[in-house]
Order: sequence, then C-alpha cells, then structure tokens
Amino acid sequence: MTATSSPTTGTTRAPAAPTPAAAVRLRPLGLGEARITGGFWADRQRANGDAAIRVGRRRLDEAGNLENLRIAAGVSTGEVVGPIFADSDVYKWLEAVAWEYGRNPADELLAMQREVTAVVAAAQADDGYLNSVVQVRHSDKGRYFDLPWSHEHYCAGHLIQAAVAQVRCTGDTALLDVAVKLADHLAATFGEDRRHDVDGHPVIETALVELYRETGEARYLELARYFVEARGHGLMAGYGQEPTYFSDRVPVRTATTVEGHAVRAVYLAAGAADVAAELGDAELLDALRTQFDHMLATKSYVTGGLGARWDRESFGDPYELPTDRAYAETCAAIGGVQWAWRMLLATGDARYADAIERMLFNGFIAGISLSGAEYFYVNPLQLRADAHADGDRSPAHGRRGWFDCACCPPNVMRTLASLDGYLATGDADGVQLHQYAPGTVTSGDVELTVETEYPWDGLVRVRVIASPGRFALSLRVPAWATGASVTAGGETQHVDPGYARLERDWSAGDIVELHLPMDVRTTAAHPRVDAVRGCVAVERGPLVHAAEQADHAAPVDDLQIDTSAATAAEHRPDLLGGVTVVTTRGRTEAAGELDLTLVPYYAWANRGAAAMRVWIPTI
Amino acid sequence: MTATSSPTTGTTRAPAAPTPAAAVRLRPLGLGEARITGGFWADRQRANGDAAIRVGRRRLDEAGNLENLRIAAGVSTGEVVGPIFADSDVYKWLEAVAWEYGRNPADELLAMQREVTAVVAAAQADDGYLNSVVQVRHSDKGRYFDLPWSHEHYCAGHLIQAAVAQVRCTGDTALLDVAVKLADHLAATFGEDRRHDVDGHPVIETALVELYRETGEARYLELARYFVEARGHGLMAGYGQEPTYFSDRVPVRTATTVEGHAVRAVYLAAGAADVAAELGDAELLDALRTQFDHMLATKSYVTGGLGARWDRESFGDPYELPTDRAYAETCAAIGGVQWAWRMLLATGDARYADAIERMLFNGFIAGISLSGAEYFYVNPLQLRADAHADGDRSPAHGRRGWFDCACCPPNVMRTLASLDGYLATGDADGVQLHQYAPGTVTSGDVELTVETEYPWDGLVRVRVIASPGRFALSLRVPAWATGASVTAGGETQHVDPGYARLERDWSAGDIVELHLPMDVRTTAAHPRVDAVRGCVAVERGPLVHAAEQADHAAPVDDLQIDTSAATAAEHRPDLLGGVTVVTTRGRTEAAGELDLTLVPYYAWANRGAAAMRVWIPTI
Repeated sequence: MTATSSPTTGTTRAPAAPTPAAAVRLRPLGLGEARITGGFWADRQRANGDAAIRVGRRRLDEAGNLENLRIAAGVSTGEVVGPIFADSDVYKWLEAVAWEYGRNPADELLAMQREVTAVVAAAQADDGYLNSVVQVRHSDKGRYFDLPWSHEHYCAGHLIQAAVAQVRCTGDTALLDVAVKLADHLAATFGEDRRHDVDGHPVIETALVELYRETGEARYLELARYFVEARGHGLMAGYGQEPTYFSDRVPVRTATTVEGHAVRAVYLAAGAADVAAELGDAELLDALRTQFDHMLATKSYVTGGLGARWDRESFGDPYELPTDRAYAETCAAIGGVQWAWRMLLATGDARYADAIERMLFNGFIAGISLSGAEYFYVNPLQLRADAHADGDRSPAHGRRGWFDCACCPPNVMRTLASLDGYLATGDADGVQLHQYAPGTVTSGDVELTVETEYPWDGLVRVRVIASPGRFALSLRVPAWATGASVTAGGETQHVDPGYARLERDWSAGDIVELHLPMDVRTTAAHPRVDAVRGCVAVERGPLVHAAEQADHAAPVDDLQIDTSAATAAEHRPDLLGGVTVVTTRGRTEAAGELDLTLVPYYAWANRGAAAMRVWIPTI
Repeated sequence: MTATSSPTTGTTRAPAAPTPAAAVRLRPLGLGEARITGGFWADRQRANGDAAIRVGRRRLDEAGNLENLRIAAGVSTGEVVGPIFADSDVYKWLEAVAWEYGRNPADELLAMQREVTAVVAAAQADDGYLNSVVQVRHSDKGRYFDLPWSHEHYCAGHLIQAAVAQVRCTGDTALLDVAVKLADHLAATFGEDRRHDVDGHPVIETALVELYRETGEARYLELARYFVEARGHGLMAGYGQEPTYFSDRVPVRTATTVEGHAVRAVYLAAGAADVAAELGDAELLDALRTQFDHMLATKSYVTGGLGARWDRESFGDPYELPTDRAYAETCAAIGGVQWAWRMLLATGDARYADAIERMLFNGFIAGISLSGAEYFYVNPLQLRADAHADGDRSPAHGRRGWFDCACCPPNVMRTLASLDGYLATGDADGVQLHQYAPGTVTSGDVELTVETEYPWDGLVRVRVIASPGRFALSLRVPAWATGASVTAGGETQHVDPGYARLERDWSAGDIVELHLPMDVRTTAAHPRVDAVRGCVAVERGPLVHAAEQADHAAPVDDLQIDTSAATAAEHRPDLLGGVTVVTTRGRTEAAGELDLTLVPYYAWANRGAAAMRVWIPTI
C-alpha cells in the first residue's frame, strides 16, 4: 500500500455528497456506513464484482478503448477505434472499480485501477485536455470542433466522476490529479466570458459539482451552474442542430417536462439538481420537481423505464409508451436513479425513493443477465414470438456481452458497485431507510442492522445495535404498500405510504418490524396510454411481472388474463436464480383456459429471448 | 415542336408496360386510352399540374439539386449540396413532367422538361456515369465507393424511369439517350462476371426492365435480373452493414415477408415482379405473392400505410403497427402501389387492385395537402394534442413544402400525373376496370365512359360508346363492398368481391351500373395488433375516416366510440374541398356523451395539425 491508498474515512460514500452548506433535507451516509450484506442485491453485486468488472477490463482491451488512450499518449501507434466517446467506457469502468474496492478492498482491484489510471494520465495533454479520439483521429479539426456530437465534456464528466469515486473509496489521488487538471482546462476555456458553448451530451454537470464537493474549488460549481444555465438558449441550433434531442429547446429553469434523448435529459436534470442543492436555488429545484412529476405521470413505463422511442433514443410525447418498441435504455434507468436520488436528498419526499425502487428492481436490473456480465441496451415490455433482430441493440437476440456503443455495461457496473449508497440517509433528526436489503446502517452513534427477504417477502426487521438515545427512525412505506404496518415495542400500527417515522428513546436490542403487504396487484394504465388499452400489468411488491414463453404452452402473443381469477405467489428457489412467481388464470382464443405463470420482469430472457409481455390483455 | 416531340402513339402509357412475351394476365392500356376527366382524382391531378409541379421546379433550384448537376457539368463552380441522392429528386420531377404532359400537352411543360433534361445531359460523364454528388464531393473516393449508401444505382434508376416516361409521353429522346448511355455503363460494370455488387437502395430493377421494354435491349433485363438475384447473399454484410435494412438478409426468391427499410423493400419487390413477368419466372412470382400476402396480413395499416418504425424507416415485426409512431412514408405507399400494380398485371387477382385502392385513397393521398403542394413524409394514424415536433419529418407541425430529404414530393407528383394508367387494363377477353373515376377508357375497338361520384357515392355507371361486338367487361368489386350489385340490360344481379365479369354482345349506348354499398363500417384489427386493442376504425367505401380536433369540443385524445349507435354519412361540399363525413355517437370520461364527426383520413391536418386518431377506443 502506498501513502495514497488509505481510504478517506468519514467522507460520504454515496454517489452524491452535498456540502454542509447545501440546501438538502437528507444527507447521504459516509463511506461504508450503509452496507448490503446479503439477499437480492448482494447476489447481483457479487456477480458484478466477480464477473462483470473483470470481464469489463478485458473488453476495454478487446474493443480498443485502452489502446486509443495509449495511442493518444504516444506509447502506441495506429488508428484509434470506436465512437468519439470511447474514453468514457474506461472512466465508467474505473468508477466501478473504485466503488467495488469500497465494498470489497481487494488488492487486485487496486492494481487494475492503478494500471488503467496510469494509461489515462499518460494520454492527457499538457494543458489538461483529454479525449483520445479527438486527439488522434480529429487532430486536424482541433478540440471542440463539433460540441453537439463530440462528447468531449461528456468524457471529461465521466473521468471526473471516476476520480471522485477513486479518492473517496481508495484514497488514490492519481486520477483526481488528472480530473483537476482537466476541469481547470475546462474552466479556463468555457463560460459566459469565455467560449460560450455546451456539450451535446450532459454529464459534466454532476461531475463538476462532485469535484467541487471533493476539492472545495468553487470554480467547478460555477462552471456546472454555467453549463446548466447555458442550455435552452439556441446553442445547438447555432450548430444547425434540432435542439430538442440535446435538451436545448427550453432552459432547464423553465422546462415543464423532459424531452429528447432520454439519457441526456436525465443526466442534465441530475446535474441541475446538484447545482440547485449547492446554490440553494429553490426556483431551479421547483422546475426539476415539475419535470420529474411530468415524467413519472406521462413518460415513464411501469418498469421505471425511460425513453419511448428508438428514433433518437428519446422520450416520446406524453402517454406515448409503446411496449414492443419501448427503448427504455439501461443507461436511462441509471440516470433516472441518479436524478431521483438528488431529488430525494433535496426534498425528503418518499416518492423519489419509490421511483428509485421501481427503476432499480425493474428497468435497471432487467438490463443485466443473471450471470452478471451480459446486457440489454434496450428494455422493451413486449417481445413477439417472431421478432427479428436487426442490430446489436435489438432485444430479439437476448442480452449481449458488449456493444459497438458500450455505454450501458460499465454504467451498470458502477451503479451496482455503488448501490449501498442509496439505501439510507441521515439527518439531525435521525436515520431514514429508503431501500430495503439485508445489511448494516451506521449514522453517527446510531447503528442498525436490517434483516429481510425483500423483494420476495415484505417483512423488514430493523434491529438497533447501538443508540445515542432519542432519534427518529424513518422507514419508507412504498406507495404500492396499501395496508402496511409497523411493529415496535410490542405495538403494531398502520402506516401510510411515505415515511413511517418512529421517534423515541431507542436502546440497543430494540427491534422494529415493517410489514409490507405483498399482495399481487393488477395495474391499469392511464387511458391515454393507447399502447396498453385493455391490458393490465401484474405487480407484486416492488417487482413488475411478465409472461414468458418458457412457462406457457400457448403463444404468449395471444394470452389474455382473467382479472377475476385468484392469484398465487410461490417462491421457486430453483428458477432463474430464485424468484417468486405469480400464477393466475387466463386463456387464448385457440387453447381456451390455461394457467398463467408470471416471472419477475427483470429475469426475462435468461432462458432465451422468446416471446414476453408485461401488459396482458384482459378477458 | 421538334422532330423528337411527336408522341409515340400506341405505346402503353401505364407506368409498367410488359412486352408481348411477358407472362402477365392483364395488359395496361395505351397512351391516353384511360383518362380521368373529373371527380376526386381529377381535382388532385389539377392541383398537381397547376401548383405542385411548377413549385417543384423552383424547389430544385432553391434546394440546389440543379446547381449540383451544373457543377458536375463544369458550367458552375462551388460545392454540391444535399444528400448523395439529390439528383433523384430532379429525375422524379422530370418523370412527373412527362406524365403530366401526357395528360395535358402544354408547351410550358415541354420547355421545362427540355431545359432540365439539358442540365442532366451535360453532367453525364463521357462513359455514361452520372451522379453529381459523387462526381464533385467524392471525386477523391471514386465511383461506387460505398454502394450500400451511395445511391448511385438508385439515382440511375430514377433517371431511367424519367427517360422512359419522357419518350412515352412526349416523344423526346434526349433523356433516353442519357439513360441508355448510363445503363450501358452499368451493364458493362456490374454483373456476375464483372463487379458483383448491388446498390443499398433498390429502384434500378424496375427501371432497367422498363428500359428493356422501351428499347428491346435484353442486356437491361439481364442486369435487372442480376440485381434482383444478387440480393440476400451477403453483399451488404461484406460492407459491414446489417443486411435486413437493405432487403439483403434473404434472397428475394426465398423470402416470405417484407422487412427492413419499407421503401427499399417494396421498390425491390416491384422490380422483382417486373423481372418475373418478363422471364416467366413463376417461382419468383409465387415468392412475391407470399410476401405481399404476409405484408397485407401483418405489416400494413388500415390506411394502406407501410412501415411501422421511424427507426430506419422500416417494417416492424408482424403485428407491430403503432398508430402514433406509424412511419407509413408517403413514398412507401407509392412503392406499394407500384408493386401491387405489377402483381395485378401478373395475376389478375382483384385483391391487388383492392390494395391499390386502399393505398391511393388513404396512405398515399394523405401525404399531400388539399392545395396540392405541401407534403407529409410520415403518415401516422394518431397525433396527440400535445405532440411535439422535433424534426422536419414530424407530422406534428403539419405538411411541409419540401424536406431536407425530399424524396416524397416529386414521388407524389409523378404518381398523380401517371394515375390514369392504373384505372383499367385490357386483354384478349375484354376490358377490366380496376379503379373508379369519371373518365374514358379505350381498348382496341372498345370505348367506354365512366360516370361516378366515387368515392362519395357507390354508383359507377359505365357507358359503352363503341363496341366491336362480344367482349367481357370486368368491374372490380372491392372486398369491402358486401351486397354489391350490377345492373345491365335491365337485370340486376348480386356480385361478389373480385371481378364482376359481364361477357355479352355489347352495343354503343349500353349502360352498366355497378352499385357499391357505401354503408359505414367499423373495422377491428387482428388481436395481435396490440397497438389498437379495444379500438375500431371507421370506414366508408374506400375511405378510412378519422376524428380530428377541429370537429370536437372534447379532447380527441379521450374520445370513445359507441359502436351500437347509428351512423350517418353526409356530403359537405364546403368542408375540406368537399368530403362526406360520418357522424355517430361517442363519449369522453369528462364530457359524457357527444357526437363524433369523422372526416376522411386523407384530409386531416388541412385545418392545422391538431389531435387526430383513426383508431378509436370503443365504449
């Protein structure tokens, strides 16, 4: 271990860490203070650490990303390959390695991190600029020759995020040095009085705020503020680009919805939320709240998936939510979680934690195979029996190990590795539990353990391990959990959706039990969602279920569901890594009545990518 | 008039003219032998001739298409502009001018034709090659450097089609000389023993067969056959392209459906049908029949629209037919008509004439404003109230005068100008009337007039003007026309869908009346068409109707239809250029019961592009 490798204990470990001055209601916990120790997410994190991140290292060689950086550094020769944002895959992978080291400090991770960080550092230009593809392939055109498409700030943003994670989780400052030099170059180049311009693809905004939080340098926050405010005033149109795609049609401060490229839109919104928090900008926060509400009400899938259109990977019009051609990019779910997390910190509103839960358990985790190293780029809610795959993103051929545009895989890796950070927050009032997984939570003098079989079972047992005396324990009650109750001190009380707040003098050994009813629910869509008229979705707990061909003799394309029939839930440890299936009755025109067996949506296409549907026509 | 301008009388004037040796059941009529003289289509042809074609001439200057050719000719300097297929807009416009001259031999048309033809001729290379954008912008890369995308054969195809139309309708051979030189260059360059390759965008196939028909040069037919047969064997994959988009995944001869880019697919199929006809290739014809059937059953809209996906402008999976994001490109309807016409000639099967009718009256003519000079590129079956336009093809801003990719406008022009050719055919047996419009039909010694208010009224009166004695008069009875009857010689008989064939000794003055019931119909989709579950479309005669916001106080987005309510049809000469509207009852959740007023779909968005829907949820 070198001097730079000692973890910066006490620093927050969550993927967003507001400064003490920030206008937030809730505060993330510190490094290691929330830990997932078993259950659903631990299984996925294990696959992520054991398989995906290791395989990812190899992919960065195979796909040429690392070689690109070596060529830019002058230590290799040849042509750079891949898209102009190829470097970002490296940075997202580095971020994943850092968070993974935070969970599981293995020397191998540190070794990989240092090797790759050195490759990155060597490619950086003397003045801080860094984008291997532009440096090599487009050296004649010069830097920032086509900001709508060149992703130079986008790559910088991912580098900065990786650097912040690295210093937070491993104490290494090598990448932070690169990030600071790059951010200083950006601050010297862009701004109201400098080059007035923004990148076509947001992400630099969150990154710069996090760098400000890590370094205390206000110019990074100022640059993030500038990049947020500069949008919506015609910059993309100045390049001859249609602005909607780039979230550049309307200023963030006055927009009332999300539109255009879904990942761009939610990354920008997350960055704007960071800016609003650090500057105490209530107007901006209000605008983001309106946009988030409109997105949830009119532009998000029951799976939490975001982005209705393959065409330009974009949000559709309100209520335009096709099931078969849902885009619902895995990265959009990740960006959605990031945005919702920042809104949760700012407002303390449980609806944002509900949204995170819906995205994580459905639209996000569906993007990864049970093995942990194969990915969906696109996450539809229906696949027909005779669907034809016509490109590497098509879900018709199942998950894939990597993509020509490989944004999703390392994005999944960094999200799973940092997931512990989204479990809980603390404030002067006490501790708030937002997501439920077996684990430990520490906040100040409060120590808790959580025991649960969630999402298969609705009992969440919180045990007080250490207590300073009086504090409030707040447990999120999801909006779907009608009839939930809490048992503490021998008393059981009904709790409404939101937070069940239990303030009292807690002692070590006290136990609180949250009971979330796991009744099977059938959900109908808003009548303007034309794509699913006459259909229902089946949900249980936080999970959306789906009918897969593997469980049905009759064609899934023709299934109808009997909503008056009884439903049953059965845990099948043998099936799909262990899932609870929902069974009920249905029919097809040709086969008559039959049993329906509905597996959790996230687990689909792990037995081949055959017919599947979430929304099922009612009889 | 010069020596080259005398019309080649007796030559067929239809847009496809099989040779005497071709294996076809029906034969198009000769130049001027079928004439539309009034009614629905004459109005549209008048707007096309008076406005669209004239405006089109100006667009070719404004958009730079003609200047591109002048630059290629060396008579202008500068950079060429627009897409690599920019020349094709000029050729389609030239074709429209030729057909329009055939209808209406105005000197002004001839003057425009000769001026533009001279510009084209001057740009041709000495060896026959011609593509202004490649010649100027890509001179360093050389010809055919990227056949999947370079559209060089595509442009050649449109030039050849224009040349054939020109010689047939005006007698001018100037463009034919260019076409022959270009076709000879192609025949010398491509083939099994030469460069083994195909263009990513079909159209050359129909063009070469037509050139063969016009010139008698068998090498053009052979080259067309080669281009058809060469597809589906990996040529596009050899360029690193995903083959489906290019109709290159499966050989035409073994394909069972249409897939990929819709316009490419139907243009190719039309060309294959021409090849099959001229070579008497029954196997190829059978394959095309299977593909057409599968397209009609699973991949076409009630409007006849083709192409479910914006993404790559392509056919979707079977039954994937979204209403809001229907692509249904105007050009695809045109290509669909061309394919169906060739299938009709080959088989004599009325279903192809039915398909032509559905496409013409709905998916095609919706692409043009009532004024005749504004166009939809994309023809959805639903627009929501709050739809946001995010590009020049978006229907949310209504029809447009021109497009960056201006394939549709001149394609509409040439189709309307040549429409007379699709009305009727002749054979040794007699005369077949396929489409109904007021006009005259001559075939051999048979002369007929047609009087009708179709599509507003179902009475079609055919009057025998001259007769050689015994012949069969065949009148198409559309599949929708349940209860149709024919009255001739004082007798009325019920007729089934297909052709009502009346063989007898006809005399001048005889009158036949076809009665097509114009009852309002509600149509339900196949249950696998998930997008319109629980909805019906309202049809009357050949017209699909739609609810537009202009006719409703309650939001069209929320309309429901009462399928048990009475319906009424009323002709409104004042409305939308004169339409028959259908009225019935419906409701919305908020407004309760209300009247529904449904206008013909083709006329939508002529009062602003507000909310519209073809498929209406049932109560």
